[in-house]
Amino acid sequence: MALGAGLTASVGVKPANAATTADLRGNDHTWLYRRLDPVTAANRAFRDYLDGHCMYGVFNSIIGELADQYGEPYSTFPTAMFTYGKAGVVDWATLCGSLNGAAAAISLLSKDSDPAITELFRWHETVALPDFRPADATYEDLGSSIAGSPLCHVSIVAWCEETGFKSFSKERSERCGWVTASVAKKTVEILNAQLDATFSAAHPFSDSKNECVACHGKGGVIENARGEMECMTCHGLGDRGNLRETHPTKLKF
Amino acid sequence: MALGAGLTASVGVKPANAATTADLRGNDHTWLYRRLDPVTAANRAFRDYLDGHCMYGVFNSIIGELADQYGEPYSTFPTAMFTYGKAGVVDWATLCGSLNGAAAAISLLSKDSDPAITELFRWHETVALPDFRPADATYEDLGSSIAGSPLCHVSIVAWCEETGFKSFSKERSERCGWVTASVAKKTVEILNAQLDATFSAAHPFSDSKNECVACHGKGGVIENARGEMECMTCHGLGDRGNLRETHPTKLKF
Repeated sequence: MALGAGLTASVGVKPANAATTADLRGNDHTWLYRRLDPVTAANRAFRDYLDGHCMYGVFNSIIGELADQYGEPYSTFPTAMFTYGKAGVVDWATLCGSLNGAAAAISLLSKDSDPAITELFRWHETVALPDFRPADATYEDLGSSIAGSPLCHVSIVAWCEETGFKSFSKERSERCGWVTASVAKKTVEILNAQLDATFSAAHPFSDSKNECVACHGKGGVIENARGEMECMTCHGLGDRGNLRETHPTKLKF
Repeated sequence: MALGAGLTASVGVKPANAATTADLRGNDHTWLYRRLDPVTAANRAFRDYLDGHCMYGVFNSIIGELADQYGEPYSTFPTAMFTYGKAGVVDWATLCGSLNGAAAAISLLSKDSDPAITELFRWHETVALPDFRPADATYEDLGSSIAGSPLCHVSIVAWCEETGFKSFSKERSERCGWVTASVAKKTVEILNAQLDATFSAAHPFSDSKNECVACHGKGGVIENARGEMECMTCHGLGDRGNLRETHPTKLKF
């Protein structure tokens, strides 16, 4: 029996390499999502983080859990590959690894993945994290901070400045495990909400971002940029921002 | 026959969910890499980009090609999931999707993935891209630009300002396909070099970055940040930078 045929038989999905363009665009490549418990996923994500860092932590807390409960096809996924996402991809501090792992899991399991990922990213950008203390935590309290960004670098700096801990401290390392747990919990909540058809985006874009996009985004007179990240985290007028007094006075914020 | 057993039999690797902590840290989870042709991968990456965007483009130009040539286990991978990386993850413009897909492929195939990924990222940060025109290209010439960053947002702005094209133009869309092809080519060159034991990092970190890290990185007096991205792209003294005149005079650049 061909391996691809086995996958098809077990959950009624096609192996990826049989996908056509229409499949790719229609999300017909997804594997069946089966309801998980958000707190179970969060606690597992922390343990998986200790094994394989942040991206692996979130991804394996979902796909690994489905594998343990249901076997194939979930158990065929080489989840350990996602160790690459650690610290924003092998320490580059680009995209937060827990978000990268969550986006990968959502893409694999959700039939409407784009709004689910965007809601998760906006939540991560705007709420104080970590917001979950794992059962196997070493510390009692590690504080929290609002990253204002999906980027590892920005998130780490915000938390270090908020709490006073250093960026290579044991506390920071555990804090990232708690963030991994927090993101896993939120991801499963979103997947469950989609399963129940109760999902809606609760974290809209900011007024300031909408104003930037009016000129710099699609159809704007400048149209020289793209992206859903909050603009003012890096481009504000404050200490971290690079906006100059010479920017057009249309700017209201 | 269990699916996991099939994977083990075909190329002598373990299914991921049998991995232990030691496996994760030792990269024993990898699938066998077999030599590919860089130009073939680059041309395929452009076609795959048209089907499923940048992250999928690079990943499928490697794993999809191995699947077409060798079948299992490569053909079991649900590569279409990597459509999520488009435009820095569903239009967020965080990590360049072609780099995200390349890192995923390297992590799955390389037994020493971290330096391979770092070399690719530094190459992407410092050379003018795109540097490859795919066989199926629509345009003759789309210019090129140095991103100074692995981030989609920064890369897009740099290219728009260098070439004058808009960020949602057809030219920009095709340019990202050429970048996808360029990254696929470089990724295969790196994987082949590792196979031949001739790999070495050719793109070291800048002097300015090393100076920043001396205070802000591990063991520095401030130690409030982490990351391998070039600091001065966002933190310089120029128009885009947010560094203030009040920064300590130790700063030489």
